This record gives sequence, C-alpha cells and structure tokens, in this order.
Amino acid sequence: MTVLNDYLVNGQRQLISPLDRGFSYGDGVFRTFAICLGHDKLAHIWSINYQKLVADCNVLGIVCPSATILFDDISQLLAVDELSVIKIIITRGEGARGYTPPAVAVPNRVVIKSAMPSFPSQNLTEGVTLRVCDIFLPYQSKLAGIKHLNKLENVLARMELQNSQIADGILLDANGYVIECTSSNIFIRIANTLITPDLSHCGVAGVTRQRIIALSPSLNLAIKVQKIMLDELMQADEVLICNSLIGVWQVTKLQNKTWKMQNTASQLKTLLEA
Amino acid sequence: MTVLNDYLVNGQRQLISPLDRGFSYGDGVFRTFAICLGHDKLAHIWSINYQKLVADCNVLGIVCPSATILFDDISQLLAVDELSVIKIIITRGEGARGYTPPAVAVPNRVVIKSAMPSFPSQNLTEGVTLRVCDIFLPYQSKLAGIKHLNKLENVLARMELQNSQIADGILLDANGYVIECTSSNIFIRIANTLITPDLSHCGVAGVTRQRIIALSPSLNLAIKVQKIMLDELMQADEVLICNSLIGVWQVTKLQNKTWKMQNTASQLKTLLEA
Repeated sequence: MTVLNDYLVNGQRQLISPLDRGFSYGDGVFRTFAICLGHDKLAHIWSINYQKLVADCNVLGIVCPSATILFDDISQLLAVDELSVIKIIITRGEGARGYTPPAVAVPNRVVIKSAMPSFPSQNLTEGVTLRVCDIFLPYQSKLAGIKHLNKLENVLARMELQNSQIADGILLDANGYVIECTSSNIFIRIANTLITPDLSHCGVAGVTRQRIIALSPSLNLAIKVQKIMLDELMQADEVLICNSLIGVWQVTKLQNKTWKMQNTASQLKTLLEA
Repeated sequence: MTVLNDYLVNGQRQLISPLDRGFSYGDGVFRTFAICLGHDKLAHIWSINYQKLVADCNVLGIVCPSATILFDDISQLLAVDELSVIKIIITRGEGARGYTPPAVAVPNRVVIKSAMPSFPSQNLTEGVTLRVCDIFLPYQSKLAGIKHLNKLENVLARMELQNSQIADGILLDANGYVIECTSSNIFIRIANTLITPDLSHCGVAGVTRQRIIALSPSLNLAIKVQKIMLDELMQADEVLICNSLIGVWQVTKLQNKTWKMQNTASQLKTLLEA
C-alpha cells in the first residue's frame, strides 16, 4: 500500500495548527471512501457520504462546511477517471487550552487523497479470516454510530492483529455482544435473514452497512438490526464484513470455525457497484 | 483568560501534518502543568510530570522523547521567572491511512505555552459549586488512568456547563460511581480519612492527585483509593477537587447540598506549594 498522500487544509496545501481541537482532543469527525470523478455513481456516493458527514458533525455541534466547498477540495486533488481514496476530516477548529469549545468556533476541514489499496483477490474468491480482539468497545450512547476522531480503541485493536493472514478483528462490547470490526461493519445471515449489530451504544454505523440494509430486499433477504452474541455469529450460515473500500467479503474462518464460500457477498458486491 | 499561545513542534516554530496520528485518531498523550524556571520546586514539578508522560506513552507503545529534549523546548518558550502553563503533547507521529501504526513510528512532540489563568480568589476562600454531568465515562481498563488525546467525553461534559457559576462538572461512570471532574480529580473526607475514586476502569490519574495521596499523612489523614457512589460523596464531611493549575478547592455546593468552608483544602494547598 502506498504511503504517498496529497492533502488540502481549508483548501490550501498547508499544515494544521497544533491548537486545532481535532489534534488536542479528537474533537471532530471523518469519512473515508473511494471515489472516481468520471464514474456515473459519483453523485450518489458523494451524496450519501456528505449526508453522513453532516449528521456526525451535528452530534458534536460542529457546523459542517458546505458540500460545494468540500467537493471543490476533492476536485482539486483528483484527476478525472482516477480512482482514489478520499478521507475528509472536519474538526471544531482552533481553541484556547481547555475542553470548553470557543464561543465562536471556525471548523477546519482536511481532505486527504491516497491511492486505492489493492486487496488480495482471494479475499473475494476464498473469503477472509477474522479474529476476536481482546480490547472491547465501551458503551457511549452520546457518541455511538458516529465516526469521530477518538479512535484509540481501534488503534489498540489493530495492534493486536500482527498476523497478516487476519483481514480484520471483531470488536465486542463490554457485555460480549458483537459490534463491528476495526475497519468494517459486520452482517450475519441466518436462513433468509441478514442481521447486523445494533449500534445504539457503540460502534460506527458505516455508509456501506446502510446501503446493504437498503439493498437486502433485492436479494430476498429480510433484514434485522439487533444485538448479536459471538455464539450466534459462530453458528450463522454466513458471516460478511463490509466497508466502502473492500465492498463485501465473506468470512470463511474464525477461531476453530470454517464456513464454505457462498454467494451472498458477491451478490451484494454486484448490487453495491450497480 | 488569554488565548495567546506560543508553541514548538519538534523544537521548531512550525505546524503539524494532518497525517499525524494524534490528529487522525487521538493516538497520543498529553500533560498540562504550571511551571516557572526560577522556582526552587522546578526540578520536582518537572520530574513528576515527565515520569507521568513516559508512563502514559508506554501504555500506548509510544517512545517518549527524552527529558532533556522536552525541557530544552520548554526553556526556549519561557522567560526566567515567568510563571506559565506548559502543555506537552506526544503523538505516535505520522502514518499512512488506517489504524495500524507504522512499523517504525517517529513520535511528534508539541510544547505549548499559555498564560497562567487567574481564577476567582473566592474559589479559595468561599469554595466552589459543582454539578453532575449527564454524560458518563465509559469503562476502558486498557486506557484507564492515562491522559490520552481521546477527550470527546470531557468536551461534551464541558459543553453541559454553560453556567459560569459552576467551577467544574462531576463525571460518573456507567454504574453511577464518581470518577473525577472534567478537568480535576476529586477527594472526599469522611472523619479523618481522605478517599479518592479508584481509576482502574476509567478516568485520568492526575499528578496532583498522586501528590495529595502522598502528602495526606502529613495532615494526619488516612488515605483510601476506592469506589465512591454519589450518595457517599453527598454525605461526606468535605469534598475537594484538585489539579496542577488550581491546586485544591473545597466544594461548598452541589445540587441541594451545601458544605461549610473548612481547612483541608488550604492545608493541602500549603503542603503542595511548600
């Protein structure tokens, strides 16, 4: 994976102040998605990502910059027909020392372009292996679902995954319920029902998860959002993980359990790309 | 309070990269303390703060820059005999997109000087009012006690305290135990015992808290570190909050309860400054 990045801070090739509250306290939100200016799905992809960005900003009381301003930044960084990963970070802006936000906060926006990672093709054809992380996600209903900048649990979880054979790590909550993976959301299929964890206490409700929830009727799958214990996941007919970069991968190995390759992941991937 | 700040990033008057993992994920730690180069307690204050910084870095697997390098940064920013607030931020350094830390991370260090705030003198003579925050601190034993950059709970808690009559807000954990205030640690006195909350599941174990634990025998007070329910706090003989900037303040009002001014806070303050 390339480490080269190009970025704009408030529309300029510049750095960020260490007084920015995103840096001081993680006081901000972010989004990551694949985008190609020439693609006919561009408007849809941008729209759902921008909507989620605004919704997450609202939870923290941050005024999100307009879609026009942010899309101009993206357009500055991308060549037409170049498929890239765009990460947008919106922070509350600079502030004096102390947790209290300034009376008038001026948000900072950062748009970072990086190369589309090349995932092993076997992840699609043979499935992936997960493990269960030791670190758990704490309950915090006031922040649940949003993609904020307080991500130390995800960092520590990723540090557990030293084995490169492991595609991602499952994060449980303090009560042992399955919440998500470090960088992806999770679905299980039981007969003709897709189930994804309830994220009202912790976790990030990703855009691809939302799209799969909306698309599942096309595959004649009922959809449920509810608590999932690890035991239920182990006994599911199929386990899937998703995010906007990988699309959908089937999980074929977790601990001592293996699953045969099935076709829900590829069907969902086709629908997501349609 | 002044908003003027002077800062050094890795020893230079420069800004920070938006690829810094402190900015992306809150992947770092910090310290805030008052310091005066001409003061005879300088070596002691610096030593206990640097030790805590190293200990907190160790929890995240970050190699803390040497005491010499950091003290040189501080010396560049301060005039002799100038009492200022120094904030040190250590991050894991820059990284590519994704939660996995780089194989070789080069930590970034930021040292920020700001003016010593002037607190109302009545806080010492008449005590302060607290309130109990709605937001609770989640359990996360892998991060408990350390002062990391994931501080959204403290930010949201501070946003609840719109009333300037409130000196700080008490943060409870999800089970209703008293943990700390947004910017200070808390002690209660019951007869001749000082009790401060057990911080093994959440909260920040501040340096001033640690110093008070060590100093309490000088006041013939026994010391206990244990779980404290809010009811126990309300019935305590005395409630105190502390940090390295305020020293120690007695709490004289919380909800419908008032306490008469007593002398433990001023005695502890004298010992801390001795």
